[in-house]
Amino acid sequence: MDFETTAVYGVLTTAILGLLYALLLIMQIKKYDEGTEKMRKINRAIFEGAQAYLKRQIKSILIPVAFLAIALYYTAIAADPSIAIGRALAFLMGSTFSASVGYIGMTMAVKGNVRVASAARRSFDEALKIAYRTGTITGMLTDGLGLLGGTIIFIIYGPEKAFEVLLGFGFGGSLIALFMRVGGGIYTKAADVGADMVGKVEAGIPEDDPRNPAVIADLVGDNVGDCAGMAADIFESYEVSIVAAMILGLIAYPGSVKGVIFPLVVRAIGVLSSIVGTYAVSVSGGTHDAMKAIKRGYNLSASISIVSFFLLSYFYMGELAPFFATLSGIILAVLINYQTEYFTSAKYGPVKEIAKSSLTGAATTLLSGLAVGYEATVVAVLLIAGTIVAAGAIFGASYAMVAYGIALAGIGFLTLTGNNVAMDSFGPIADNAGGIGEMADLEPEARKILADLDSVGNTTKAVTKGIAIGSAVLAAISLFNSYFEVTHLAALPLQDPIVFVGVLIGGGIPFLFSAIAIRAVGRGAFQMINEVRRQFREHPEILEGKMEPDYARPVEISTFAAQKELLTLGTIAILTPIIVGFALKEYALGGFLAGAIVSGQLLAVFMAIAGGAWDNAKKYIEDGAYGGKGSEPHKASVIGDTVGDPLKDTAGPALNPMLKVINLITLLVAPTILLYKNDLTVSILVVVVSLIILSIAVWYSRREAELKTS
Amino acid sequence: MDFETTAVYGVLTTAILGLLYALLLIMQIKKYDEGTEKMRKINRAIFEGAQAYLKRQIKSILIPVAFLAIALYYTAIAADPSIAIGRALAFLMGSTFSASVGYIGMTMAVKGNVRVASAARRSFDEALKIAYRTGTITGMLTDGLGLLGGTIIFIIYGPEKAFEVLLGFGFGGSLIALFMRVGGGIYTKAADVGADMVGKVEAGIPEDDPRNPAVIADLVGDNVGDCAGMAADIFESYEVSIVAAMILGLIAYPGSVKGVIFPLVVRAIGVLSSIVGTYAVSVSGGTHDAMKAIKRGYNLSASISIVSFFLLSYFYMGELAPFFATLSGIILAVLINYQTEYFTSAKYGPVKEIAKSSLTGAATTLLSGLAVGYEATVVAVLLIAGTIVAAGAIFGASYAMVAYGIALAGIGFLTLTGNNVAMDSFGPIADNAGGIGEMADLEPEARKILADLDSVGNTTKAVTKGIAIGSAVLAAISLFNSYFEVTHLAALPLQDPIVFVGVLIGGGIPFLFSAIAIRAVGRGAFQMINEVRRQFREHPEILEGKMEPDYARPVEISTFAAQKELLTLGTIAILTPIIVGFALKEYALGGFLAGAIVSGQLLAVFMAIAGGAWDNAKKYIEDGAYGGKGSEPHKASVIGDTVGDPLKDTAGPALNPMLKVINLITLLVAPTILLYKNDLTVSILVVVVSLIILSIAVWYSRREAELKTS
Repeated sequence: MDFETTAVYGVLTTAILGLLYALLLIMQIKKYDEGTEKMRKINRAIFEGAQAYLKRQIKSILIPVAFLAIALYYTAIAADPSIAIGRALAFLMGSTFSASVGYIGMTMAVKGNVRVASAARRSFDEALKIAYRTGTITGMLTDGLGLLGGTIIFIIYGPEKAFEVLLGFGFGGSLIALFMRVGGGIYTKAADVGADMVGKVEAGIPEDDPRNPAVIADLVGDNVGDCAGMAADIFESYEVSIVAAMILGLIAYPGSVKGVIFPLVVRAIGVLSSIVGTYAVSVSGGTHDAMKAIKRGYNLSASISIVSFFLLSYFYMGELAPFFATLSGIILAVLINYQTEYFTSAKYGPVKEIAKSSLTGAATTLLSGLAVGYEATVVAVLLIAGTIVAAGAIFGASYAMVAYGIALAGIGFLTLTGNNVAMDSFGPIADNAGGIGEMADLEPEARKILADLDSVGNTTKAVTKGIAIGSAVLAAISLFNSYFEVTHLAALPLQDPIVFVGVLIGGGIPFLFSAIAIRAVGRGAFQMINEVRRQFREHPEILEGKMEPDYARPVEISTFAAQKELLTLGTIAILTPIIVGFALKEYALGGFLAGAIVSGQLLAVFMAIAGGAWDNAKKYIEDGAYGGKGSEPHKASVIGDTVGDPLKDTAGPALNPMLKVINLITLLVAPTILLYKNDLTVSILVVVVSLIILSIAVWYSRREAELKTS
Repeated sequence: MDFETTAVYGVLTTAILGLLYALLLIMQIKKYDEGTEKMRKINRAIFEGAQAYLKRQIKSILIPVAFLAIALYYTAIAADPSIAIGRALAFLMGSTFSASVGYIGMTMAVKGNVRVASAARRSFDEALKIAYRTGTITGMLTDGLGLLGGTIIFIIYGPEKAFEVLLGFGFGGSLIALFMRVGGGIYTKAADVGADMVGKVEAGIPEDDPRNPAVIADLVGDNVGDCAGMAADIFESYEVSIVAAMILGLIAYPGSVKGVIFPLVVRAIGVLSSIVGTYAVSVSGGTHDAMKAIKRGYNLSASISIVSFFLLSYFYMGELAPFFATLSGIILAVLINYQTEYFTSAKYGPVKEIAKSSLTGAATTLLSGLAVGYEATVVAVLLIAGTIVAAGAIFGASYAMVAYGIALAGIGFLTLTGNNVAMDSFGPIADNAGGIGEMADLEPEARKILADLDSVGNTTKAVTKGIAIGSAVLAAISLFNSYFEVTHLAALPLQDPIVFVGVLIGGGIPFLFSAIAIRAVGRGAFQMINEVRRQFREHPEILEGKMEPDYARPVEISTFAAQKELLTLGTIAILTPIIVGFALKEYALGGFLAGAIVSGQLLAVFMAIAGGAWDNAKKYIEDGAYGGKGSEPHKASVIGDTVGDPLKDTAGPALNPMLKVINLITLLVAPTILLYKNDLTVSILVVVVSLIILSIAVWYSRREAELKTS
């Protein structure tokens, strides 16, 4: 066997190794005890709510997925039947993998949280280990399945045809991620806002109080949004960035598979170093510094990776450019972490500024949060621009090489996905464990441990959000570059007004998408508030603690609210590129992609940072600044936090998979658009039908809004 | 004399005619009486505050303007000394004209408002006439000076060199407009937010109550922001769009001046029809429908224009394409008006939705406003995209022709600038007249008339804001197209990562700019709130009406707040294109322009619409919906309105002139960038020096923020 074949099978083995590690962790976690009967009961309610939601969601996306698989098959069959069937199957594989990462990760998170709560009654280290390792399960599933799918397709189809099939794989993953992200985001925020506004603000009961009817929905929401949604999202970035790197690698090194093997092996190295690094997370003695332990594991993984990349680049590629390009992605990840921390941590100026402005009321709190968010997104854009310039400059020469360099930066950026996802899932697990601790009335020491873990979880969640967005943009730019390879456009002249029109329309899409997502949360929260108010009004015994509230109804409301909007948002993401492509042709479509990526990036970071900064300004005040809990500044900061919630947890994160869906749809339909370029009948037909479907979807969402407001 | 020469001198005569009409109106207005002694006294205070502000502002921008005039001279002298001196002088002329429109318009508005208040004691029609004709003065100044400058330069320099000098003219106008817009916007909102939050919310006294120490500052703010700022802004769009049309007209019709003469004559026709239409505004009998009268005048002007354009196009150009391109701009203006009204009037769904969501508190009010604003900006972008496609399709053939078609759409869009500015200035005049009526305690009938006029003024202001933004984008796109003519770039390939990097950075600039503008308002309002609180605390007699508050100090605070940020924002607009151009070269700079235009358009419309919608949702509740004034939903809606204020009146409108400054700076420095393209020393030197200046400016603005928050 030559080196390439060995390498590919080595990568395949590593992917399976990652999955086995996840399996090992699952078995480990299951062995821990689930605590008292009360804890089990609460956990069962969360488990049932989460399962009910995901089952319903999977059911509601089965038909669109089946339809799209058939469409993918039929649109490709004329060109090449083997690609047609492969692409449809790869699409189903991508969908299934993405859904599985979300589903298994979430299920394990629910199983883990009660065990964390129980372990907190014994020791800090045990609680931390269970929480982090449960998160690592999702991380390793992401790594393992992402690598497995790409490698299998490459082995079956070989360098020539693989990318045609990989597009289907990427599309499946992105589409499911979009649904999981949007659905989970709406679910969790409708429940959260509803629970907070009536429970905390109106009734004055603490967070996670068992008397709040929406408390279970809120806990379920953490799992379906932060856990299932985020996992599917990062899985998709992980998958799409390897797809882009493989496509561009083939073009950058014509006649050789070096450009494909390198990113695959880099990924495999990342998986191995994540296994080592995540397993090392633990605190010794009496210290409670969970963040330090997690960071130590991260640094260990990063060190192993960087050294291995250097060796691989030097000995296999015979040059250091691939190493430096990959390294630039790793450096970007580090810088994005700092940037996120600076703008969202109460340790620095921006959050303090927001907290201070709450002295003069909610309006000034909101204005300063907007300013901070706008500023932060500019910094992020400059960091990404710097990385692109660096990665491009390293490879110099041709567009194809520069594009490959940027794709490698994307690969580098996501090297430690295993660790990142583990950190992210750690958040909702710790959060839920804390909730169970409150509701089950655990010992104060145990609750203190859980509160400490929860606060670390908030930080790790914020950090991974920055990573998710950054990865989306790097992956999107790589896909954008693939667009030119697929369409063979010599140049996409920006001075052509039709390209500019494409950029304008593309720039608008993330705004439209955000508007609908924000409105969906508002509507869900509105119903939730009314339901909680109704329960308190009809059964005053609930607030006295003499009667258990009806937890099931709020769970149903959130589930329903989340499902309703999926269709509209999915339709926008899938149809707008088709409409632009058939109506204004391939040049405008290229501009459309660029516009969507730029405004999507700017909006997504703005939303994530503004939301995080408002949240932490509130916590800063709750910790005693400006009068502390219950003061007027605190009320103002709660309003800021509530506005930020759907921005940072629903609309903002949903933009990542949306960008990728738009990109992949474009790549998939580009050949068809070129084929029917001069056929006016087909073009008009496609545009009109798409517009009708889109109008129905948007009208449906508007109609609901107007019904509610009349 | 041939037709061309006749036409040019005819245009010149029309420009002078417009100015004479303005002079006639000034003399007419001055004849009306100024009412009671009390009214005069209040008016004098407003007058002094406004004068003091503008004088200080003009003083603070004298040095940068002088410096830039010298820089313009020296950067062009090597290529052509006659252009160098012409460009510097044209820059000074553009600056002076823009400042004069703002200054005279504002002074007349202040003189007019007291006369409107006095006339309201006699009849509705008289009050309407004075208010509208005072506004028309600014409108005709805009028309007259804009046309005069362009024509003079064309006569002196001839078709070959005119555009080089016109760039200086456009730049001068844009730069002053930027300063007037930003300064006026910060001034008015710091005063408004401060007056409202302490006066209305904390002390519970009505709007425009003489006991409020910030009331004079608030009234001055209406003049310096809505009147001087907006007038300079539209003047600049008017001027820049003719500059762009003349540049592109020369290229579209090589060897002929037809392409230049057509837009000039179109403009002259617009001026004449504005004179007729604005003079016709009046109500007859007992009717109080001011909006109908204003619309009638507008429709009259529009009809005259359209018929004349058709004849001109058919007989002079010998084809109808120029007519249709111009018409597409007029249609866009009509559609933008409808779009603005739909999203910001309480008659339709969006504002009702926001009002309804205030039932569940400020957070949901804010979220639904964000959703409405995001949605509206997408609609605006689609309308503009449609116009570009239409105007481009009409001219077909080459890029040059398509670009010219788009420039003509921009000319058509601004045809009725006279009417538009009259409508816009009408707003603050009616607003101030109402304020004087309240403070001077006029008869109830007179106050009713003033309130009616004020409410019409709110609508006309909102409508012109939509026009201002739309015109900015069309003008910016035309300038963008001129960029390619100046740099002779064959194609600006969007797939070149360096172009994409330019687009990313350009997209970030409007966000950075908005962040600083919003923060400036917040900071000004913060000081204003503290000052008003201090006066109430130290002199409780003020609230009892026994002592006159100190009006001067709040005026000073607003003036100071407005001046302080001009430097930072001006520096960003001027230096970022220079930095990008020298660091990343001409391709990235082209991408930078495109990115700035797209994200600027999206943000500006979002801010204008969200702000207007929150404002009207509040008014809708004040008119009795959801519990009316003083209810919980009302309080929530006041917070929404306060957040919207700096968005719609400071940050959003400042983006228009910013886009133009960026565009023009780019055009001016492009030859120098190309010249030193391969000279690493010069490039590094320019970039480093610019970065240092920029850092100092930004640090200065951040430092202030941190001082305040520590």
